[in-house]
Amino acid sequence: MSVQKELEFKGYAVTDPSAWSQLSVVPFQAKNFGPEDVEIAITHCGVCGSDVHTATGGWGPVTPPLIVGHEIVGIVTRVGERVKDVKVGDRAGVGAQVASCMKCRACNEKNENYCPNMITTYAAQYPDGVRTQGGYSTGIRAHTQYVFPIPEKLESRHAAPMLCGGITVYSPLRTNGCGPGKKVGVIGIGGLGHFAVLFAKAMGAEVWAFTRGTSKAEDVKKMGADHVVDTTVDGYWEDLARTFDILISTVDHFPAGVSLRNILSMLYIHGKYITVGVPDIDEPLPPIHPFDITLNGCFIGGSAIGSKVEVLEMLQLAADKGIKPWIQELPMKDAGKALEGVKAGKVRYRYVLKQDIAPVD
Amino acid sequence: MSVQKELEFKGYAVTDPSAWSQLSVVPFQAKNFGPEDVEIAITHCGVCGSDVHTATGGWGPVTPPLIVGHEIVGIVTRVGERVKDVKVGDRAGVGAQVASCMKCRACNEKNENYCPNMITTYAAQYPDGVRTQGGYSTGIRAHTQYVFPIPEKLESRHAAPMLCGGITVYSPLRTNGCGPGKKVGVIGIGGLGHFAVLFAKAMGAEVWAFTRGTSKAEDVKKMGADHVVDTTVDGYWEDLARTFDILISTVDHFPAGVSLRNILSMLYIHGKYITVGVPDIDEPLPPIHPFDITLNGCFIGGSAIGSKVEVLEMLQLAADKGIKPWIQELPMKDAGKALEGVKAGKVRYRYVLKQDIAPVD
Repeated sequence: MSVQKELEFKGYAVTDPSAWSQLSVVPFQAKNFGPEDVEIAITHCGVCGSDVHTATGGWGPVTPPLIVGHEIVGIVTRVGERVKDVKVGDRAGVGAQVASCMKCRACNEKNENYCPNMITTYAAQYPDGVRTQGGYSTGIRAHTQYVFPIPEKLESRHAAPMLCGGITVYSPLRTNGCGPGKKVGVIGIGGLGHFAVLFAKAMGAEVWAFTRGTSKAEDVKKMGADHVVDTTVDGYWEDLARTFDILISTVDHFPAGVSLRNILSMLYIHGKYITVGVPDIDEPLPPIHPFDITLNGCFIGGSAIGSKVEVLEMLQLAADKGIKPWIQELPMKDAGKALEGVKAGKVRYRYVLKQDIAPVD
Repeated sequence: MSVQKELEFKGYAVTDPSAWSQLSVVPFQAKNFGPEDVEIAITHCGVCGSDVHTATGGWGPVTPPLIVGHEIVGIVTRVGERVKDVKVGDRAGVGAQVASCMKCRACNEKNENYCPNMITTYAAQYPDGVRTQGGYSTGIRAHTQYVFPIPEKLESRHAAPMLCGGITVYSPLRTNGCGPGKKVGVIGIGGLGHFAVLFAKAMGAEVWAFTRGTSKAEDVKKMGADHVVDTTVDGYWEDLARTFDILISTVDHFPAGVSLRNILSMLYIHGKYITVGVPDIDEPLPPIHPFDITLNGCFIGGSAIGSKVEVLEMLQLAADKGIKPWIQELPMKDAGKALEGVKAGKVRYRYVLKQDIAPVD
């Protein structure tokens, strides 16, 4: 396996926010390399809903050039002198976070994904002013804490989308006790939802998949769902009253008239509805009345990606159990098309982009 | 101690829903007495916010005559042949629930307060058609499961308001791990809030009381709060970012412009905001965006009264630690005034009505 000696940092960027899916290759400045940093020549990058929300300006104004992508896998090309986990030539990945303060309570308690001073993989800035740029690109540098060695049994194209899509559902499943004897519902079977089905099943739970219509039903059964529920059928929640320990909602746009009361009524006492879908900033959750959550003493919770401990555990679980996401591979030059496909809900179930600016082989 | 042989069931009732605080004494039919039932001659009844929501029609249309009151203590006057916990002459209480199905999963798991077929102490109906009537009255009959012996060390007037106000905050504090090393905030210091301060402190937590203005500050310190926060000060939440393990919100009416985002930002990672205040049915919670709960992975939860196990534990804790609610005693004929006082937020901190229709001595 040969890798280029000196990475040239270039990526597919949004340069004109009014044409968010027309990407063009631009050079960018990578992080200034430190003794605890790792540099990776990117081979694969998954396409996440966050990429769409960010590129379209749905989560806030876009500062071009913007290179999105935070489901990154590649080959390590350089390591700082204090790096121990990985060495040059290893496969390694980076998710949605590239830094945190490393000294707050969250960081000390291995909840660095909730550090209030975390730096995201793109659309953010290091303290020295260097802007972060994502994985639709040739390479990335990140602190070793945010770099994950990829288990040998896991293909890079399969590991990549786990680093945001996978961990975003794995973390709340784990935190909230998913396992044998538990009943888990997954609402919305896209990239995140299909991972939730795969992982919840691998963790031993009985799994229900909630999806609009029947077009995905066969796929979802193959992913391991024990039950598939068509949410376009009125009253679908009635037979499932007080059933679930955990509901993972990947919904990031609620059609008018959707009632959270109906959804929450499916939770068993003290059950948890965890939203990992994050709509555009002008779209709050449908209205909630305290009666909706007092009658079964349930919880509405949020969750953001996961910690390194959780990522490593998830990758090992995937390697051990042979968990493979359902992906569609595209050359990286089709990143704009992929973004459009995600926005339109066409993807089955995750796009993974393959390096084509500076192929690594 | 003498009690009347045959209880005459009469109570202060709403007879005209348009004049919800003009109560008049009316007779009513008590539950048909069964072998597991207990009959109590009421000596004291607390005045709960629920009484106001129900009497005013805020939680739904009123069917007169309606006798509210579900913080009931009195003397046992009759027990069914299968009753073991209490005997005639004992002090005993009844809270907000008088029945449940006794066979569903919730009931079997000692979560009978979440039984989907639970019957509330007033404004409900038994399967045989007898309507339930509350404690602003001479007496009540209930299944022994919903009758709580009062520990000797606890005065009846102090025990009464614990049976809804107290247990409603005790249960979520217990469920969510209140104890030494935990930081607990109590939002809204009325009847429920003052109990939350008393119990959270007794359970060993560090306690913050959030209250509008400073008029209650001195009282709240005396109740045991370690810190008092004036929520009329703009930005009060900023110095408390990510502080709390548990926030108990007793707020049952949100002034316009209140942002739950600010409140939720005070929760530590995976912290829980538990709403025990239940506004009128036309008042949902202020809008919530998933960003408000993903940044710290927090939870918004509801909670409804408590189980018998929890009530008995709470009463014992109160007896052991000498916990006394801050009450204002009134003769039961002033029940209408008390309802108005609760609605206007004038009470400091719980009204307790003393029997005056058929005094028990």
